[in-house]
Amino acid sequence: MAEQIARDAANAFASLKTLSNDQRSTALQKIHVNLLKQKDEILVANKKDMDNAIASNLSSSLVKRLDLSNSGKFDTMLQGILDVADLPDPVGKCTLARKLDEGLNLYRVTAPIGVLLIIFESRPEVIANITALAIKSGNAAILKGGKESYETFKVMSDIVNSTLAQETDVPGLAVQLIQSRDEVSGLLSQDRYIDLVIPRGSNELVRNIKDNTKIPVLGHADGICSIYVDNEFDMEKAKRVIIDSKTNYPAGCNAAEQLLVNSSIDEASLNEILAALVEAKITIHVTPEVKSLIRSSILEQNAAFIKDTVADSFDKEYLSLDISVTFVHSTEDAIKHINTHSSKHTECIITESKEKADKFLGGIDSAGIYWNCSTRFADGFRYGFGTEVGISTNKIHARGPVGLEGLMSYQYQLKGDGHIVGEYLGGGGNKVFVHEDLDI
Amino acid sequence: MAEQIARDAANAFASLKTLSNDQRSTALQKIHVNLLKQKDEILVANKKDMDNAIASNLSSSLVKRLDLSNSGKFDTMLQGILDVADLPDPVGKCTLARKLDEGLNLYRVTAPIGVLLIIFESRPEVIANITALAIKSGNAAILKGGKESYETFKVMSDIVNSTLAQETDVPGLAVQLIQSRDEVSGLLSQDRYIDLVIPRGSNELVRNIKDNTKIPVLGHADGICSIYVDNEFDMEKAKRVIIDSKTNYPAGCNAAEQLLVNSSIDEASLNEILAALVEAKITIHVTPEVKSLIRSSILEQNAAFIKDTVADSFDKEYLSLDISVTFVHSTEDAIKHINTHSSKHTECIITESKEKADKFLGGIDSAGIYWNCSTRFADGFRYGFGTEVGISTNKIHARGPVGLEGLMSYQYQLKGDGHIVGEYLGGGGNKVFVHEDLDI
Repeated sequence: MAEQIARDAANAFASLKTLSNDQRSTALQKIHVNLLKQKDEILVANKKDMDNAIASNLSSSLVKRLDLSNSGKFDTMLQGILDVADLPDPVGKCTLARKLDEGLNLYRVTAPIGVLLIIFESRPEVIANITALAIKSGNAAILKGGKESYETFKVMSDIVNSTLAQETDVPGLAVQLIQSRDEVSGLLSQDRYIDLVIPRGSNELVRNIKDNTKIPVLGHADGICSIYVDNEFDMEKAKRVIIDSKTNYPAGCNAAEQLLVNSSIDEASLNEILAALVEAKITIHVTPEVKSLIRSSILEQNAAFIKDTVADSFDKEYLSLDISVTFVHSTEDAIKHINTHSSKHTECIITESKEKADKFLGGIDSAGIYWNCSTRFADGFRYGFGTEVGISTNKIHARGPVGLEGLMSYQYQLKGDGHIVGEYLGGGGNKVFVHEDLDI
Repeated sequence: MAEQIARDAANAFASLKTLSNDQRSTALQKIHVNLLKQKDEILVANKKDMDNAIASNLSSSLVKRLDLSNSGKFDTMLQGILDVADLPDPVGKCTLARKLDEGLNLYRVTAPIGVLLIIFESRPEVIANITALAIKSGNAAILKGGKESYETFKVMSDIVNSTLAQETDVPGLAVQLIQSRDEVSGLLSQDRYIDLVIPRGSNELVRNIKDNTKIPVLGHADGICSIYVDNEFDMEKAKRVIIDSKTNYPAGCNAAEQLLVNSSIDEASLNEILAALVEAKITIHVTPEVKSLIRSSILEQNAAFIKDTVADSFDKEYLSLDISVTFVHSTEDAIKHINTHSSKHTECIITESKEKADKFLGGIDSAGIYWNCSTRFADGFRYGFGTEVGISTNKIHARGPVGLEGLMSYQYQLKGDGHIVGEYLGGGGNKVFVHEDLDI
């Protein structure tokens, strides 16, 4: 069954790959029309999911994430499809053109990757988002959503599949929605047909998938982001950036989890920063060295918000209003701490020194390196990618927020006129390559 | 032990990453000087490896691959180091610059990947080649060579390590040579420290590594390349290209293994092509349909070179002067056959029709797609990449011949002035992003 799904996707990809941007974008517009036309059916199904969620005592935040009827969410979702349809064609862009010899020209051209397996939890609008990105980029997609949004997915995927099959040049099986968890484990072994797995969800989901497939996985498990406050710093920027990085959305992977403070900043400044954090209802987990410098008035008035660090305080993602705080002695020391403890997501330095900022920007081995701004900016929309499929802490292929570009590969096209290697130096002959770059 | 090696490499990478192009290139020049100075010692060690190889009855082609004293191989190897040193700096190139808002600018900058584990067989010049590429690109490398070249490696790696440690800013452990097979399996589980594995060697070596690690593997197991001869074709180009693709170096991964012929080409043409192949001492493995059209004179005079296809004839890499031959009915049919059977390495169409060539170029899902030229051109040197670390049939990250660029990742740098997300639309505020691309 899983093999059949994967093979169907590979076959659908083969024809999807040959379609023009017009054909792909028109398909998205048709999907938009039909989802809009059947808004009522979708919201009825969505209501069923919500009722089931409430009946099974799901947390109110989860129930809220399920709700498509809320404050323009449905319309935003549909508009997202049109926005993706209007993006420039990501397929077939020439990124290298080189004359190897007279009449022998090499071109590197962007191409879709192939078959994507996307596994996500709850939020039903993801189906529209991913469908749009996959079709626009010429990739086939197999989607597995959370069981909480089963009814919504079922209706939406029927609309997507029937629209594709009946009204467009995109094969109906270019986007397949699968239901059962059994099929997921079967699909994770289809490395012959599936080229990339994109999990969107909890750390556990991502880690579990990484541990159970040979297919490359794009995404992140942990988001352990750090902020380093240098001794040459601006107090207002520091407080703004730390508090925003921690409190703007503590459950986000781009929220800060650690605060490193240069050990030579004065006690008053240290106390001002920490007082601002506890005032913002952030629980600070401090090392003994940091604690020994906190003023007793602060300690006494905020006992509930001040904790001692424990063994794993600098290797965990709180996903809550908690932050670990320690001293480092220099920019080098901060870099070393971060490269050892971070999840290579996003790190920030607060400094007025360009020299130290440049050292930090050059030394950190993470997808995002920031200077005087919130780690929460690590996001495809904020970067101007239109929409994103997730944030990658991988070090190969796409890194950081991943938009359409991250779903593209490339191919080399070589156009000759009977050219053979045997006539060239190194291949047995004496012709020499020209290797002259051509205008793209 | 393996963990220590991997951690040392990660630490070496952390400082290597912060060095300038000058520091990295100077280190390569120093290595060049010392390898040249100790040429005699290296060749003595190399002689021991050769003697051992002959004593243990290794094939003469393997012994020949070991030999560094042969026809300028040593000098070519050393020149390669200087050539890499002279390449433009691959690190820190800005590939995207975008103003997100006043004073908040995003830059995407190339950066090394991290720690590479490179596993290769016999050829001792690879140590120089890989050392140069790794240091130039700012990556740390762990090298495991074949036991056949143990003595040569030992001497060369001592020179490399002592040069780095004593005369350069590059840490001595930026390049580590390891000896034992045990350590390889230990290293393959160090996914915390090692970012990419590059195996260079037999299909078995590559497959075995892919099956035993969670670390991304860059390379190819099989190279099953195909040539499709359309019915609108030029006979001379067809014969030249097919024979070169098959005979120029049959053991190469870019040699052709399959010939697809449009079923509407006339019998005389088919016979002319096949006669040329058998005359070039190529054994043709033909389907019954093809065989039924071969002239009896050709069949009788070349019985030893004409065989029937068997079940896996279109799913194997011969690595010898053999090729499988079948009919397909159209360009679409050829694309379908290739996308099903090829290893996604390099495929070629022989046609005088631009329309069919374009269809082929658009439909094939391989790293290289060629029109009227030999599949043997799939090579980093021929593409003008200077040197190559291998050829990738992966569909993510680097694809096709991989040069310095394939050893690079990128990072996002965001430079602000106290900017926080809470003030922007979507983050809780009402400021709007500018998203204006800047000149790079």
